[in-house]
Amino acid sequence: MLIEIGRYLNKRLQQLGIYHIFGVPGDFNLSYLEQVEAEQDLEFVGNCNELNAAYAADGYARINGFSALATTYGVGDLSAINGIAGAYTENVAVVHISGIPPLHAVKQGALLHHTLVDGNYDNIMNCMKEFTVAQTRLTPANAASEIDRVLRQCFIERRPVHIQLPSDITHIKIEVNEQPLNLIQPKSDPELLDDAVNKIVKAIAKAERPALLIDNEAQIFNVTDLLMDLAQKCSIPFATLCTAKNIMDESSPLFAGVYVGVASQPSVKNLIENSDCLIGIGPRFTDVGSAYFTHNIQPEHFIEIKQYDVNIFNQNFPGIDITELLTQIMEQVAIRKVSKPTLEPTEKKVEQFASSRKLSHDILWKYVSQFLKEDDVIIGEVGTSNTALSGIRLPTTAKYIAQPIWGSIGYTLPALLGSMFAAPKRRHVLFIGDGSIQLTMQELSTIIRHDLKPVIFVLNNGGYTIERLILGENSTYNDIQNWKYTEMINVFNGKGAYDTFVVETAGELQNTLDKVSNYDGLALIELKLPAMDAPLALQKFADVVARYDYGDLAYRKLKTPPQFAPCKDAI
Amino acid sequence: MLIEIGRYLNKRLQQLGIYHIFGVPGDFNLSYLEQVEAEQDLEFVGNCNELNAAYAADGYARINGFSALATTYGVGDLSAINGIAGAYTENVAVVHISGIPPLHAVKQGALLHHTLVDGNYDNIMNCMKEFTVAQTRLTPANAASEIDRVLRQCFIERRPVHIQLPSDITHIKIEVNEQPLNLIQPKSDPELLDDAVNKIVKAIAKAERPALLIDNEAQIFNVTDLLMDLAQKCSIPFATLCTAKNIMDESSPLFAGVYVGVASQPSVKNLIENSDCLIGIGPRFTDVGSAYFTHNIQPEHFIEIKQYDVNIFNQNFPGIDITELLTQIMEQVAIRKVSKPTLEPTEKKVEQFASSRKLSHDILWKYVSQFLKEDDVIIGEVGTSNTALSGIRLPTTAKYIAQPIWGSIGYTLPALLGSMFAAPKRRHVLFIGDGSIQLTMQELSTIIRHDLKPVIFVLNNGGYTIERLILGENSTYNDIQNWKYTEMINVFNGKGAYDTFVVETAGELQNTLDKVSNYDGLALIELKLPAMDAPLALQKFADVVARYDYGDLAYRKLKTPPQFAPCKDAI
Repeated sequence: MLIEIGRYLNKRLQQLGIYHIFGVPGDFNLSYLEQVEAEQDLEFVGNCNELNAAYAADGYARINGFSALATTYGVGDLSAINGIAGAYTENVAVVHISGIPPLHAVKQGALLHHTLVDGNYDNIMNCMKEFTVAQTRLTPANAASEIDRVLRQCFIERRPVHIQLPSDITHIKIEVNEQPLNLIQPKSDPELLDDAVNKIVKAIAKAERPALLIDNEAQIFNVTDLLMDLAQKCSIPFATLCTAKNIMDESSPLFAGVYVGVASQPSVKNLIENSDCLIGIGPRFTDVGSAYFTHNIQPEHFIEIKQYDVNIFNQNFPGIDITELLTQIMEQVAIRKVSKPTLEPTEKKVEQFASSRKLSHDILWKYVSQFLKEDDVIIGEVGTSNTALSGIRLPTTAKYIAQPIWGSIGYTLPALLGSMFAAPKRRHVLFIGDGSIQLTMQELSTIIRHDLKPVIFVLNNGGYTIERLILGENSTYNDIQNWKYTEMINVFNGKGAYDTFVVETAGELQNTLDKVSNYDGLALIELKLPAMDAPLALQKFADVVARYDYGDLAYRKLKTPPQFAPCKDAI
Repeated sequence: MLIEIGRYLNKRLQQLGIYHIFGVPGDFNLSYLEQVEAEQDLEFVGNCNELNAAYAADGYARINGFSALATTYGVGDLSAINGIAGAYTENVAVVHISGIPPLHAVKQGALLHHTLVDGNYDNIMNCMKEFTVAQTRLTPANAASEIDRVLRQCFIERRPVHIQLPSDITHIKIEVNEQPLNLIQPKSDPELLDDAVNKIVKAIAKAERPALLIDNEAQIFNVTDLLMDLAQKCSIPFATLCTAKNIMDESSPLFAGVYVGVASQPSVKNLIENSDCLIGIGPRFTDVGSAYFTHNIQPEHFIEIKQYDVNIFNQNFPGIDITELLTQIMEQVAIRKVSKPTLEPTEKKVEQFASSRKLSHDILWKYVSQFLKEDDVIIGEVGTSNTALSGIRLPTTAKYIAQPIWGSIGYTLPALLGSMFAAPKRRHVLFIGDGSIQLTMQELSTIIRHDLKPVIFVLNNGGYTIERLILGENSTYNDIQNWKYTEMINVFNGKGAYDTFVVETAGELQNTLDKVSNYDGLALIELKLPAMDAPLALQKFADVVARYDYGDLAYRKLKTPPQFAPCKDAI
């Protein structure tokens, strides 16, 4: 089949289930954007800037599986690269399409704008290589195979890829394969697979205290249902890492809680650290996720299952597909019953507060947990919001989006735009602080432009509260300009239905949540919170961060150790 | 002398004349920011995001010579990197200080937030190496010498450098050199210098049609006065490249105009291309600056003087300092008189328009050229504004700031913030389009926070006009959301004096300019312009871009060649 290079790329994107491309136009991608404009089932969603576009693509892929981002060479690519690095870190499959200068100019090292005018056309690619799993510069000779190679790698690894599309070859017709893109994961070696399955099945049968420790990789590779089946068949309790919030049914009696090293609930700590057969699903023991490396896992009792890499009690099995492995384990493992559920239910009654009480985190999250509904998409900005939301039980079918590892502030507002395009029929609820929203606030304009109707909570605590907790409680660098957040919608020319609220007390919060629950329009709620108020878990964490980051010398010079109330919420 | 590492860095920054650090706090730079907060003569200027901070640092350095930018590791660095690359391209000396994780964590490859959690601590540095002239990761053992090495290289090359400052070593005291930072340019080899000076002096004496072609490097290395002296002593007419707007006195009878290859005025083209001794000062013949490489320079008549690299009629003289060279040429060259100035004055009378006439570019820039004053700092966003301002004569002592080569849209609003901190007593006038301001608009908040009083013109033409001219006149990807630009100041909580205007006619423009001329406060003027109206030079340029970028095939498929009125303005 003969087809224009740009149109072929579009066809392949659609085969990945991508129906929207986020980005910003620039002269080197306009001829490609014309080809997007010409597609029936592919829409270009223009963003206010490229970093926001990358975040939006990330948010879209977290629901849709895959997403695409279009930028122009140099300026656009480098503006977006922080979003690409975040997607790489958090295992999000973003196809980054950069419209680059015409091939003839690249070949001769022409001194073009958007370059360093030194003839070097490798510097951007060199940067992108650090944060993508496959890269290519398309030519008429390689486009048919390179587009497939790179997109397939994006599919296999579920991480960003980088495609450079020269502006002068978009409309050149090439002969291509008519087979759809190969979307089957590479198979495992059968002998190795058998061996691994046998060992794990036997280990489970023999174990007295088996347990599952699940991280976000389970969601990325769609094995959460398999894991739940396995847990139920064998009565294996499971814990998650905090980077895997709500990917499993947290209302299940088998759900033990969140494992965070020494900061875990004692029952969770005991379950994980004293298991004689601990099955980890892609666990990443990050600083945040392990309370600064205080996790205590015994390798001789540890089975670690990652995509294409399995370790069983210190023995490595490379190249085993996680889905094949779990499917076969599930088929072969014996039913295992235990007399009583390991864990008592943790549901608590909802407290009520006097309506005149000043708003605080204590009140906020208790009310919020009642406000959230099944099927909501809930997005929590790193810091206060993510910490608080990680500590409460979310509705079972709610999808939770955060960027807990890369932790780039401002991420969530554009990510919300992306998630709404991916799941337009669900309610989307964002929690973001004042410090964070200032980084990316113009993307609210794009949300308004497309008449989307999220619920946005802006936690206004007068600056970078998480940083004040770490260092510089009263330092001016932690101050920001106080905006009139509820008036932004007007500036951005909101024409559809919208409503705004400023909340200062428990009673106002209750009333606002009641109104918003039944409101069909964009709702923006500014929550006025004290500057040093935060979930207890965050306060404790911040102090650990300060000790780790600055060392004893600077810590002693700069900080008075904080006093905490007796701990109730472990995370 | 014993001094804390962070305080030593601050001391050295001050010796470079840096009194403000732009940036965003993050946990890995807080201990350093405490040390900035402790300085008498160094102020941290917090920005809304890191890209804006990098642009602000760029704007500051364009007036101040040097600037500093502080970010946190990973997320902050990569958010800022597009601004760093721009500074590299345009020869702007920005010291980028990244607060990185504690040295003990880096050494052991700890899986920290703001990293890819793969133990790799080289990826950010690898990226920064592409866009900086020196880089270092400080340790207690190397800090005393590395800080000096890197800052000196920034001084010598006037381009960005990257300093990684681990969060746990900021407060460690080290023994340092008490001598101030060496701020003397490396000297030339005396024999080579003599030889080059002799050759150039003889060439000038012999020449019948000598000419100077001056680019921005003349300003970067402070030789514009020397060049003017030389031009006057020897009656040498000079032209500039469009990347060197207003760095020379454009009212001088020796100023020939702007050389842009075939797009030059015939007199300028003739002067440059038929010179028998053309002295180029750091000329960079970029696409934009040479009308797509249509410059025609004869190497056998060309003397090219760059910082530390001189070519005389095809003979190379490496390592010669530009200031030493020009100083000695000036001393040794004979006075050379010509009977009459080469060029007639180009000043024109100012047209007046009926006050009811709808605003257009035709009207706008004629009025603007009367509004601009001596000593103004004038900032022109790439695209419409920069093209138009390049074509008009600016007041002699006005400083012009643009980013014509890297051309990252949105640059100028944060750059304005920076330029105002560098020259608080001058009037700063910004021209920016609606498409561009949307990328970085939150930095207006920082301008307001510090009660600065620029004049900001927002050219609202309903989208990306420069791109519509290139491709996709009616394509939706060139549309943007229309904001209420004049209401942004209220959202950002402007408390100082400010006024806003919306201008739709020639009469309103005249009235507004009259008012703003005598106004002591921030003025924001929204100019309503037709979507396809642009300076003729930009219209022509855009069509050349389209032909170059997309090649014949796509150009023919996608575009109808535009019709232009007979050309008057060459640039």
